[in-house]
Parts: sequence; structure tokens; C-alpha cells
Amino acid sequence: MPGVGVHEVIIENPDHDKELGDLETNHIRDVLRVYRERIRAIEEDLHYQYVQVFKNKGKEAGASLSHPHSQIVATPIVPKRVKEEVYGSERLFRTHKECIFCRTLRDETTLNERLVLRNDRFCVITPFASRSPFEMAIYPLRHSPFFTTEGNEELASLAGVLKTVLRRLKTTLSDPPFNLILHQAPNPTVSQRAWPEIEQYFHWHMEILPVLTKVAGFEWGTGFYINPVPPESAAAYLRGDQ
Amino acid sequence: MPGVGVHEVIIENPDHDKELGDLETNHIRDVLRVYRERIRAIEEDLHYQYVQVFKNKGKEAGASLSHPHSQIVATPIVPKRVKEEVYGSERLFRTHKECIFCRTLRDETTLNERLVLRNDRFCVITPFASRSPFEMAIYPLRHSPFFTTEGNEELASLAGVLKTVLRRLKTTLSDPPFNLILHQAPNPTVSQRAWPEIEQYFHWHMEILPVLTKVAGFEWGTGFYINPVPPESAAAYLRGDQ
Repeated sequence: MPGVGVHEVIIENPDHDKELGDLETNHIRDVLRVYRERIRAIEEDLHYQYVQVFKNKGKEAGASLSHPHSQIVATPIVPKRVKEEVYGSERLFRTHKECIFCRTLRDETTLNERLVLRNDRFCVITPFASRSPFEMAIYPLRHSPFFTTEGNEELASLAGVLKTVLRRLKTTLSDPPFNLILHQAPNPTVSQRAWPEIEQYFHWHMEILPVLTKVAGFEWGTGFYINPVPPESAAAYLRGDQ
Repeated sequence: MPGVGVHEVIIENPDHDKELGDLETNHIRDVLRVYRERIRAIEEDLHYQYVQVFKNKGKEAGASLSHPHSQIVATPIVPKRVKEEVYGSERLFRTHKECIFCRTLRDETTLNERLVLRNDRFCVITPFASRSPFEMAIYPLRHSPFFTTEGNEELASLAGVLKTVLRRLKTTLSDPPFNLILHQAPNPTVSQRAWPEIEQYFHWHMEILPVLTKVAGFEWGTGFYINPVPPESAAAYLRGDQ
């Protein structure tokens, strides 16, 4: 494995004290456009099989810079967790000819137990098997494997949703540290070769993981996460029901 | 999945200020005997497919009690990380008819680059793909799938090794928080059924993970761990070479 990769830091705004959720929606949209443009540019080099966008907010979440920023790391292989999502969704697709994410969204928007919010394009849920208290996942309602194919209007809509959930996290949980990650299908050329039908079963999404518990011995040993807050309670709390 | 399980806390000694590595070797052996006896007892109930023994030392490592203790959690399924090790070692066994752990130990004891210490029964290495700085793994040199089959002499020998590495960790790295986990083949009855040849390819071991970095967005997104200390430097440091 050659030691190649990319690491970029995105300074989200010049004001040291303004976090992503504090910015105007148009400004958040512009940050998302930077994500999209940088992923597109990096993916032109086929060595970069996966481009991981993420954000660490707060020292406890691993942020080593206090100025609000996001990061991009491109790897010459498809990461383990992304492969788990790809192979997991492929398995359901083979049996049921359906995208597991689309199915989950249909169930969650109907059930309405773990739904934090939705607009006409996106929805936010607290995942059934949340690893951390108040974990959230943001999905486009329309099936879409690649974040990079979203237009400016979609990103403006996503910016509104992101602002709302980041504000709620800040106000309801006293500004907790969190990690945000973006998962989409790997570099299209790689995806095409390795998983020819991936566009039908992978569905991009963002995950927000507040840092309220520790990864400890049980988690390292098992890969299971102890989470004392049921996702249904977390969703109700984040919606403002209680 | 029924909500069944076991959670036990092992108070290692009555003295609040004596950590596991500070105890006499005979006392550490007795703690290891408690691990063994409790695993054996819990595994009699076949609902408990896996018994995870672990220890969180220090608040940053997730310890919620400050008095020195270990924990046992039994789960009604084989945990994800254990399955990864089982299936990974099974794959090599199918091709090479060899235990991947035995092969690694042979290579590491010959190479001597990541070897921290060894005695006649056990060795301690800093794994090639260490997830955290100064991560260590303790293996019995003789092939052995189950910790529970080790005799008192073996546990006394292990206690000596464990005491040495915990002391070195404490003195060379200023008493860092750490997680310790024990991995062995799942409940023998379950193993027999699901992986009939597991006794030939699984090899029990302990992992010690000092908490010196944070699990952040990159780690959550990829399942890869950023580790700024090469395991060769960590081994040299822990051996006292530098």
C-alpha cells in the first residue's frame, strides 16, 4: 500500500466564535458546496478510492484546532466502515431489490418515533441502533448514492436542516462536543468496477455523534456501544416534545 | 433478541490506591483466576454466547468507579469484533492450514522489532496495525483458543508478564488511562456448532489500549485509527531502549 493520501482543512468562517450551526443558512450552504467541490476534485485522481469528510467540534471530540473547521481525508482504499455499509446494503438489495436506506426512511417517516425533523428534501432520524446518546443521521428523501451530484438547491435545503439540528443540539444539550461525518458511495470509478449496482443500493448520509459517553473496554472488545439514551427519547427531546 | 445478559464487577483488591499492576504477582494471578472461574460459570448457560472481560482504568478510559476493578459482560450473541477476528483467522486457516496468531508470534519473535517482552510461556508485542499509541497485545506462545483452559501455573506466568507491562506503562507514560480486553473463542458449545475447526485457528489474547488519542470523526467515518507513534518506537520505549 503506497503512502498516498490527501488531508485538507476547511476553515468554515473567519469568526473564531461562530460555530457551523451559528452561521447564516447561505453560509452553511457554501461550506457544503466546498465539501462537494473538493470531493469532486480529489476523486478525479483514481488513487483516491474514498474521500472522507468530517468535522470534530470540541476538544473531547478530538478537535485539535479550536477555530471552527471541517476536514477532508482521502484514502487509497475504501475504509472498513464504508465497506460494511456497502456490503450490508448490497446484501439487502440482492434479496429484496430495494435500497435499505430508502426502506428505513419510509418506515421511520411513517412510524414517526425516531424522526427529529423533515422538510421536502431531507429528514433527520435518531438511528434505531444509535451508538451514542442523541446520535442523528441526515438522509436525502430521494434516493441518491453520491453527495457530489446534489445541486445548489439541495445543498441550500440541507444547510437549513443542518442549521436546525446543530442549533437544537447546542441549546438542548449545552453545546456538546460532536463528530459529524459524511458517507457516500466510494469514488464513482472505483464503485463502478467493484460494485456495479451500487448506485441502486447506496444512499449518502451524514451522521452526527455527540460525545457524551466514552469508548471504553466493552466497546473496544465487542464493537458494540453502550448507549443509555433510547433513540426514541432522544428524538422527542431534540424535537422539543419534552 | 431477548434482553438477557450478565454484568459483573470484580473488585481487584481492597486498597483504593493499588492498581492492578501494583499488586503482588500472586494477587494478580488470583484476579486472573477469578476471570477464568467466572467465565467458566457463565458459559454453562448456553444463552451466553460470549463472555467479554475488560478493564477500564482512569476516567478518560471510561472508568466510572475509581476503585480498581475489572468487568465481565456476557452477551447473547457473538460480538462484532470477535466475529471479525474469528472470520479473519478462519480465512487464513482455510488457505494456509495455520493459525494466524501463531504465525504472527513466530514472525514477531524472530523479527524482534515490535517485541516488548517474553518469558517461556507468553509474549507481549505492539501490534503492526496498532490503533492507539503504545497498544500492546499479550499472547500465550503455545497455541490455545480458550483462556478458560489455562492452568494456575500459566496464569501465574501471565500475572508476571501483566505486572511488568502495566508497571512499564505506568512509569514510562506517567500512569496513562487504559483499556484492557480479553479475547478468546466464543462459548465452546457455540463455537463447536458455528465454527467446528475454531480450536485450530483461534488463539486467545489480551489487548491493552492506552488512551492517549481521541476517537474522532475520521475514526467514526472510516473504522481506521490515526496513530502518531509507530509500534516499533513504542516497543523500544516500553522495553526501555530509549
